[in-house]
Amino acid sequence: MTAHSNLNIVPFVSVDHMMRLVLKVGTETFLTELAMFIEEDFRRWAQFDKTPRVASHSREGVIELMPTSDGTLYGFKYVNGHPKNTREGRQTVTAFGVLSDVGNGYPMLLSEMTILTALRTAAMSAVAAKYLARPNSKTMAIIGNGAQSEFQALAFKALLGVTSLHLYDIDPSATERCARNLSGKGFTVKTCSSSHAAVEGADIITTVTADKQYATILSDNMVGPGLHINAVGGDCPGKTELHKDILLRSDIFVEYPPQTRIEGEIQQLAADHPVKELWEIIAGKSEGRESDQAITLFDSVGFAIEDFSALRYVRSKLEETGLYVNLDLLADPDDPRDLYGMLLRREATLLEI
Amino acid sequence: MTAHSNLNIVPFVSVDHMMRLVLKVGTETFLTELAMFIEEDFRRWAQFDKTPRVASHSREGVIELMPTSDGTLYGFKYVNGHPKNTREGRQTVTAFGVLSDVGNGYPMLLSEMTILTALRTAAMSAVAAKYLARPNSKTMAIIGNGAQSEFQALAFKALLGVTSLHLYDIDPSATERCARNLSGKGFTVKTCSSSHAAVEGADIITTVTADKQYATILSDNMVGPGLHINAVGGDCPGKTELHKDILLRSDIFVEYPPQTRIEGEIQQLAADHPVKELWEIIAGKSEGRESDQAITLFDSVGFAIEDFSALRYVRSKLEETGLYVNLDLLADPDDPRDLYGMLLRREATLLEI
Repeated sequence: MTAHSNLNIVPFVSVDHMMRLVLKVGTETFLTELAMFIEEDFRRWAQFDKTPRVASHSREGVIELMPTSDGTLYGFKYVNGHPKNTREGRQTVTAFGVLSDVGNGYPMLLSEMTILTALRTAAMSAVAAKYLARPNSKTMAIIGNGAQSEFQALAFKALLGVTSLHLYDIDPSATERCARNLSGKGFTVKTCSSSHAAVEGADIITTVTADKQYATILSDNMVGPGLHINAVGGDCPGKTELHKDILLRSDIFVEYPPQTRIEGEIQQLAADHPVKELWEIIAGKSEGRESDQAITLFDSVGFAIEDFSALRYVRSKLEETGLYVNLDLLADPDDPRDLYGMLLRREATLLEI
Repeated sequence: MTAHSNLNIVPFVSVDHMMRLVLKVGTETFLTELAMFIEEDFRRWAQFDKTPRVASHSREGVIELMPTSDGTLYGFKYVNGHPKNTREGRQTVTAFGVLSDVGNGYPMLLSEMTILTALRTAAMSAVAAKYLARPNSKTMAIIGNGAQSEFQALAFKALLGVTSLHLYDIDPSATERCARNLSGKGFTVKTCSSSHAAVEGADIITTVTADKQYATILSDNMVGPGLHINAVGGDCPGKTELHKDILLRSDIFVEYPPQTRIEGEIQQLAADHPVKELWEIIAGKSEGRESDQAITLFDSVGFAIEDFSALRYVRSKLEETGLYVNLDLLADPDDPRDLYGMLLRREATLLEI
């Protein structure tokens, strides 16, 4: 019995545990370590089962399941996207995820992933820029100063040494909030009154707006040679941020082409427009930036393997931090064939009380 | 704040809560009420998003996600199937599930589903038999006396008044255990030393064996006119229980043809062999049993809508029983655009201590 006495238990990382974990590790260290897990998984890309997400669309939004497996571990994320939610004081996107043992199918971790997704998206962006932006890129424009903006700034500082930020949002209060949240974190912050002003002098442009429609956050004349564009906000059919002409001048890098063709900026291009797969750059199989004059574009949409990496990373932190609780999630009868007998024995226990 | 102060919370029904819920309601009442929820959902079949399960196969087994939605609620079940697990003291099948609000994408319930799946499978079988077995069927043979057998017996007693059981398993200790577990529950139980002995005099035959291979639990000469066969054990590619000749003599009823053609007994038949959809019988759109001489067969594989019904039923019981805990699963910042600010405010709280 003792060896198996806790087979019913799955560790659970709540929202509060996740916050305390990030604070305990330190946000920048968390992002740096998470980025290492992402790079590790991207280097062994071929090992993964890759399937498009399974989406359930409704008038108000979408609920998606994003599974993947490396043959040893299986992970999936549940995530919703409901743009109208903020009007009711809810998050547009919430998420949770599970990591399981492929060998026996038992879940090994249940975790909140609303905060974790924000962190993994930022870590992924910074990993891409590490391979694609010009060396010594120090200044980043962030266009769109919502929930993802601070995480992007901190990830680029931690991984690339970006310390100068140009912030712009159509809502000035969002820019103020972002600047306030980042004060004392080691940045020089310039708040800008237009996207044109924000991109001036930037080495990297991050677009991370939330409009669920075709928008032109960046027009062609704003993008000079040598820039790296980190396009985070366009991430579903009908939602893009960049003018098509920018795409045609850029070397485009994507996570998983079958998904990005549908959800990314490149939905504006022909289905056979050449793109490079980011994992090939990270694994050293293909060149990233070809010259100081090239415009590189990471067309980010978020892929299941990044969530898998994030769950793996969180799991690696459980023992040392103790920041989880045990959930009684799995039935564990003494005799596995005797599920009903477990009910009967529980009944006997209740009657004894 | 007060109106939204618990947006982070999702009710969680643990394994122990589920056991206490079943015991509090009473197993037979639970099965009867659950059957009503299943029938309700089968009657409005057209309202549901129906997709085949999303399976991740490995050498040892399979992990599946089974989503569905009626446009108002969304549900999914995580379930694994690993036949070798029992050798390590684990369950072959474990499961948990989530019910969400389609309007905002927020989960409303997280529940264990290992026990719940056993109950919904039995309730589904009994619902099918209610429409398909001859009236006044009182005697059921159960071939295969593993984890599902007692639940089947209790569901058929609750919904059809079956009180006479003929039990057979290749492992006599399984039969003994099943008979012992059901003693005092209102059955006359005959333990049998062969499947031939078990089917003699039976009105209904339930096959619920666990072999992961083509097997012939029932051969053609064992099945006389008028019988209802409840074939539960054959539920994945390569796993069947009935001789093909039985199928050819039977009127076959299935849950969702695209899934049953792959997973059910009818994988042995031509892809266009006629079958009837159970929902049409329940909704009164089509005839079930055509005569007292007909052999009816419910080729059960388990479908996502049944899990959805089960989650709906469990949710309906939360308030009156209080048998759940609140999980801090969803991030709920005061300002939905300020996820990082939530981290900063949590940090300030921790420093105050």
